[in-house]
Amino acid sequence: MARQRQERAERTRAALIHAAAEVFDQAGYHGAGLNAILQRAGITTGAMYFHFKSKEELARAVIVDQAAELQWPRDKKGLQQLIDVCQYLAVEMRSNVLFRAGVRLAVEQSEVNLLDYSIYDWWAEQFGAHLAEARELGQLHPDVDEGAFPQVLVAAYTGTQIMSRLATNRADLPERIENMLRCLLPAVAPAEVVATLEFPGNGGETTP
Amino acid sequence: MARQRQERAERTRAALIHAAAEVFDQAGYHGAGLNAILQRAGITTGAMYFHFKSKEELARAVIVDQAAELQWPRDKKGLQQLIDVCQYLAVEMRSNVLFRAGVRLAVEQSEVNLLDYSIYDWWAEQFGAHLAEARELGQLHPDVDEGAFPQVLVAAYTGTQIMSRLATNRADLPERIENMLRCLLPAVAPAEVVATLEFPGNGGETTP
Repeated sequence: MARQRQERAERTRAALIHAAAEVFDQAGYHGAGLNAILQRAGITTGAMYFHFKSKEELARAVIVDQAAELQWPRDKKGLQQLIDVCQYLAVEMRSNVLFRAGVRLAVEQSEVNLLDYSIYDWWAEQFGAHLAEARELGQLHPDVDEGAFPQVLVAAYTGTQIMSRLATNRADLPERIENMLRCLLPAVAPAEVVATLEFPGNGGETTP
Repeated sequence: MARQRQERAERTRAALIHAAAEVFDQAGYHGAGLNAILQRAGITTGAMYFHFKSKEELARAVIVDQAAELQWPRDKKGLQQLIDVCQYLAVEMRSNVLFRAGVRLAVEQSEVNLLDYSIYDWWAEQFGAHLAEARELGQLHPDVDEGAFPQVLVAAYTGTQIMSRLATNRADLPERIENMLRCLLPAVAPAEVVATLEFPGNGGETTP
């Protein structure tokens, strides 16, 4: 019975986060009403308070859980894996509402006064792991700063996403991310390594 | 007399944009009230309507005019000039309210539904001019994409600024921008060129 209750609580929490992501994604933080979120989730105010005390707490959860439903590609290694993950994220952002809403809130959180930096560190760790693997594979220039570069990659990805959203509502995000990587990878790897890497290009599989 | 009227109108417009920048900077777009802006500017509603019809129009003006009071360093050329400008901007953002508010609104404008891309293109043109000069000076790798790289630089700067704001309220922005440039410049210039460039470093003149 305890286990059933726990499962139900987890379903309720997930439904709340999903409904919140949908409403934040459409209306932004200030435009999102708690009632709209509860109605969409089919959950009462009382049931919500067991999990979240406020819209702000829901927004924090959407930021922190933004990557929870991503299914990373894992079949390549090093820099190729970094390219594949970056491209996967660019395509996924167009359909995965939790990811998209989490990124939006993370960018606009100073407007919301959440001021949570941890999600940026988390992304830097993910990118950093592929870079460390690239180092092991002998793909990197010897003097690449493995601590600093992932932070720059997260910054460039964040800015590119903002610019793509404004320019084309993210329709050109995969193309912009490919351009970004083509510009940045020569900073960390010799030309003969970059020449071996596959980019999806305009007719590639990740840009339907 | 016409000239006096025009000068007065320009002063009124500048006072409105300044007051708006101060209030947007402190309170964000949604937290900013038109009355607070008018009071700070010492201007009546009627005088405002001659220039701006709404808070949204004021916000647009703050975004578009964000660079109006910057005094760019102009004494170096090519990549050194690019470094100096990027560092100048990082320091300036901590004290120049119009610049800071304009950047904030540009980043958070999807929350505000302004969706104006032109300011990002404008910044890419500024950075691109220094890169074109670097090309003339023979500082760049032959295969650098001069069209794409300035966009990536704007994206990386934008993301770095967001992350610095969250992490330290921009106290570490000059240091982060220096790290960003140290990571990115090897993508466009050979190591022997990068070695000749001066970065302010921790004890440099632009990080007081």
